[in-house]
Amino acid sequence: MKVIDKIQSLADEGKTAFSFEFFPPKTEDGVDNLFERMDRMVAYGPTFCDITWGAGGSTADLTLDIASRMQNVVCVESMMHLTCTNMPVEKIDHALETIRSNGIQNVLALRGDPPHGQDKFVQVEGGFDCALDLVNHIRSKYGDYFGITVAGYPEAHPDVIGENGLASNEAYQSDLEYLKKKIDAGADLIVTQLFYDTDIFLKFVNDCRQIGISCPIVPGIMPINNYRGFLRMTGFCKTKIPVEVMAALEPIKDNEEAVKAYGIHLGTEMCKKMLAHGVKSLHLYTLNMEKSALAILMNLGMIDESKISRSLPWRRPANVFRTKEDVRPIFWANRPKSYISRTKGWEDFPQGRWGDSRSASYGALSDHQFSRPRARDKKLQQEWVVPLKSVEDIQEKFKELCLGNLKSSPWSELDGLQPETRIINEQLIKVNSKGFLTINSQPSVNAERSDSPTVGWGGPVGYVYQKAYLEFFCSKEKLDAVVEKCKALPSITYMAVNKGEQWVSNTAQADVNAVTWGVFPAKEIIQPTIVDPASFNVWKDEAFETWSRSWANLYPEADPSRNLLEEVKNSYYLVSLVENDYINGDIFAVFADL
Amino acid sequence: MKVIDKIQSLADEGKTAFSFEFFPPKTEDGVDNLFERMDRMVAYGPTFCDITWGAGGSTADLTLDIASRMQNVVCVESMMHLTCTNMPVEKIDHALETIRSNGIQNVLALRGDPPHGQDKFVQVEGGFDCALDLVNHIRSKYGDYFGITVAGYPEAHPDVIGENGLASNEAYQSDLEYLKKKIDAGADLIVTQLFYDTDIFLKFVNDCRQIGISCPIVPGIMPINNYRGFLRMTGFCKTKIPVEVMAALEPIKDNEEAVKAYGIHLGTEMCKKMLAHGVKSLHLYTLNMEKSALAILMNLGMIDESKISRSLPWRRPANVFRTKEDVRPIFWANRPKSYISRTKGWEDFPQGRWGDSRSASYGALSDHQFSRPRARDKKLQQEWVVPLKSVEDIQEKFKELCLGNLKSSPWSELDGLQPETRIINEQLIKVNSKGFLTINSQPSVNAERSDSPTVGWGGPVGYVYQKAYLEFFCSKEKLDAVVEKCKALPSITYMAVNKGEQWVSNTAQADVNAVTWGVFPAKEIIQPTIVDPASFNVWKDEAFETWSRSWANLYPEADPSRNLLEEVKNSYYLVSLVENDYINGDIFAVFADL
Repeated sequence: MKVIDKIQSLADEGKTAFSFEFFPPKTEDGVDNLFERMDRMVAYGPTFCDITWGAGGSTADLTLDIASRMQNVVCVESMMHLTCTNMPVEKIDHALETIRSNGIQNVLALRGDPPHGQDKFVQVEGGFDCALDLVNHIRSKYGDYFGITVAGYPEAHPDVIGENGLASNEAYQSDLEYLKKKIDAGADLIVTQLFYDTDIFLKFVNDCRQIGISCPIVPGIMPINNYRGFLRMTGFCKTKIPVEVMAALEPIKDNEEAVKAYGIHLGTEMCKKMLAHGVKSLHLYTLNMEKSALAILMNLGMIDESKISRSLPWRRPANVFRTKEDVRPIFWANRPKSYISRTKGWEDFPQGRWGDSRSASYGALSDHQFSRPRARDKKLQQEWVVPLKSVEDIQEKFKELCLGNLKSSPWSELDGLQPETRIINEQLIKVNSKGFLTINSQPSVNAERSDSPTVGWGGPVGYVYQKAYLEFFCSKEKLDAVVEKCKALPSITYMAVNKGEQWVSNTAQADVNAVTWGVFPAKEIIQPTIVDPASFNVWKDEAFETWSRSWANLYPEADPSRNLLEEVKNSYYLVSLVENDYINGDIFAVFADL
Repeated sequence: MKVIDKIQSLADEGKTAFSFEFFPPKTEDGVDNLFERMDRMVAYGPTFCDITWGAGGSTADLTLDIASRMQNVVCVESMMHLTCTNMPVEKIDHALETIRSNGIQNVLALRGDPPHGQDKFVQVEGGFDCALDLVNHIRSKYGDYFGITVAGYPEAHPDVIGENGLASNEAYQSDLEYLKKKIDAGADLIVTQLFYDTDIFLKFVNDCRQIGISCPIVPGIMPINNYRGFLRMTGFCKTKIPVEVMAALEPIKDNEEAVKAYGIHLGTEMCKKMLAHGVKSLHLYTLNMEKSALAILMNLGMIDESKISRSLPWRRPANVFRTKEDVRPIFWANRPKSYISRTKGWEDFPQGRWGDSRSASYGALSDHQFSRPRARDKKLQQEWVVPLKSVEDIQEKFKELCLGNLKSSPWSELDGLQPETRIINEQLIKVNSKGFLTINSQPSVNAERSDSPTVGWGGPVGYVYQKAYLEFFCSKEKLDAVVEKCKALPSITYMAVNKGEQWVSNTAQADVNAVTWGVFPAKEIIQPTIVDPASFNVWKDEAFETWSRSWANLYPEADPSRNLLEEVKNSYYLVSLVENDYINGDIFAVFADL
């Protein structure tokens, strides 16, 4: 969706938009950390996030990759910076076509800084010499597809700011005229350069309105994180620093914590003032850090740790082709990125009903689904690669996970236990100690308010429901005991399969079971999570393969623990259990006397 | 769906199929009565109903019309008889193409009796001379589309039964061979001629199995309704009457009630015996009467008045193009036939989600939607055409309806109040007496068992839910009071419109609100009833037009009552109210102190 449309619809509801800017880190670990951080920050529901374009196009491929992962895996509306520096039009179009095919609709069109080591911007052959040309090109070649944002300079563009730190009035006015041309050429949103004097920003907005610029003007705010960085950035951008700010920083400049705290305070006050003047959106330059940006938004009451609102129980990719997707099988609940990659090829994504998607053909299981950030690999190594002499030792590991003592799990991309799992972790511990090794579960939920912190989703005034679900590995002998027990528990439906494709179940192949649903005012019933045999049969290969790829293979070759894990993988069954009576049923009754 | 598939899937579930046969009545009133009777009988869930083809094709058009109305309006899987008598192949194909285009998939292929006044069957020029040829034709021309049923004669075909009432063994054997040929030619089901000696039927089944006929053989049972009719029918079909049956009938032959009671007893015993011998389906020749057929099925415990199971809250057309339809707007709840006729032109029918069907274009409102069986017209005349001097008199009529004292309503095709309306009729009476003239409503339902007699649907082991709904006419002044009241009741959503298209609402045009839904084991959430602005805007014309077409116009021209009704029609608003909080809300709170 275009950011401008999102900002406008929020404004119509009297809400304020906020957004975060990131830059492409230099190292692979840096990129992994950025995505973990982004995952946490995006949970607060920013309207969009943008990713910068390395000076001179140096990080082009990395930025393109990060932008696509933001939109499709982190699932936030993403905006990519695009600059003219060293970019012949073929490269510009390659970038635009790439993000379009990845379902991204938003671009920040900039002339861009001169490449490293050069003072002056030089137009590259076959490229553009200013943002205006870039805007014209995007509109003429891609019509109305892209939302185009351009930069606004409350203190005029640095190129026209003199030694005295000020731009002449003519230069400022012609800067404004030039900004208007960019809007008239088809840009629909302005984000400003950073500033620390709010009055300058408010005057700039007023001046823009005077010359007929009517689109939203989003203030760009960079919380002060450390003194030297602050001086370097404001020096580079020739930003005016109010006297009181320097006076406040001077005594604490060597105390990083104090500078950060002051930065949060200053940022909060600046935003309060702008909100009071009717500003409807805030853009935070995070420098890839989260604390200050989140602290400012919390101070403003715009986000609340306890009330992270989820539109669905799982995060929906912002990819323009997937924005209507609202039904998924439960099996990849802890491996959402794998699910996104295995469904990437789908033409359309299930909306409202899983229905006939049974015939959905998942992408083949590949190394990609088992590639992990190095940090996660280290975690798995530390927490899971211990001597395993017996199945009981394996059970102990699963019990530790249920106790919340482990941060990682071979079967999950996510950190530790999910909030709702804590509701049933006592029963989970008992079940695991009986040899039923759980890798996914959800408690039953009957008419909980949809803003419940643990199980809520979908906005404030609805009711949410869940059928209790349990997925685990167990031996054939234990499976037989479960099957026998279920004969006396008619509201339980199960499916079980081993690596050899032997299938045991009491439901029909075509039975699609909605296990999470929500009822909201003036809405159709939303059922985001289902259990279906066809997807379970695809998922089981990934689940069995995880024994080797994410655990056994972390041991040296021929290590006895490794062999034990392979034995379990080749002999155990993967079982999916649903308690359909979410009002009176108890899924754990199955294990009572096993 | 093909009847053979339905019978087989019921057998897989260990259930017995039952079906009713009707014939095309001679008069229009007779046809109206048949459909009212069929409506009642179909509520018990017969696997199919068939309609006979008048001897010599005399009732062709009527049978075709009745068959289509059975499949599309009464919403039961329908099978049409088709005979060769006087039917050149063009006429045969016209009939087959007509039922195919009406979504009917089942045909009973017969040679047919000779036309009235002729003893011997004569092959018509360009037609077929036996059922076998007809089966061959249907298979070769229509491939696998039709389910084809053929007749089986437990006592051999009447043409080969001698004066002594018996067929020679050769004639019986060749009759069996001929039946096999019909099956081998592509027929997939056998329904037998009527009989009263169950042993003969059981022997016939056995003999069929001996020569390799493996498809289901459905016994045709005609409950004895009156003595003379019984003798005439058995005489015509040359049916053997067991001695004990004649002995039982002789003393009571002039007492119609006693003959009917004996007919029910005999039918019950015959069926018990056949069921005990593994027969899995029963076909009842009803002669367009309901009591005996229903009594036999009740005696057998196959139907239960209190447990009329509804797969959906409204009856879904059996039309092969509509069998997956499971979402409808609530507005036509009391006028299902009108809804079917106004949606006939749709390509596909909403399944699971109303979703984008908002753009559905309804068929234009025409005289057809206001055509009524004469009996209903008489009822309306008696119950509604009274002197109306003031709006209070109109209110009294609506109150009488809520009290259950009226059998008819201008705004309903159905008889009297629906079971669930009785849950809230006290509140409805109060609301109507305050000038809010209700024409549709449903109580809120929170997790009721799906086999509840009043609000249940969808089969036994689910939970059903409803948001409370109220639809009424009222003056602008009263509407304003409601709108004001709703400001303090955030969980109420409303839409209101008058004849002049002035629209008042607190929901968005695109808001589709699920107001009835059900949760069932191993199923996706089913939401059969929704409230949506686009359909409400179409429905309102029909609702306003009803003031004139079904009430005012029943008065003489210029009658003051008629003028009063027109005045109300042109000044009142039609209001649709939903209480979205089906757990804690109370829709009647809106009217508390109005």
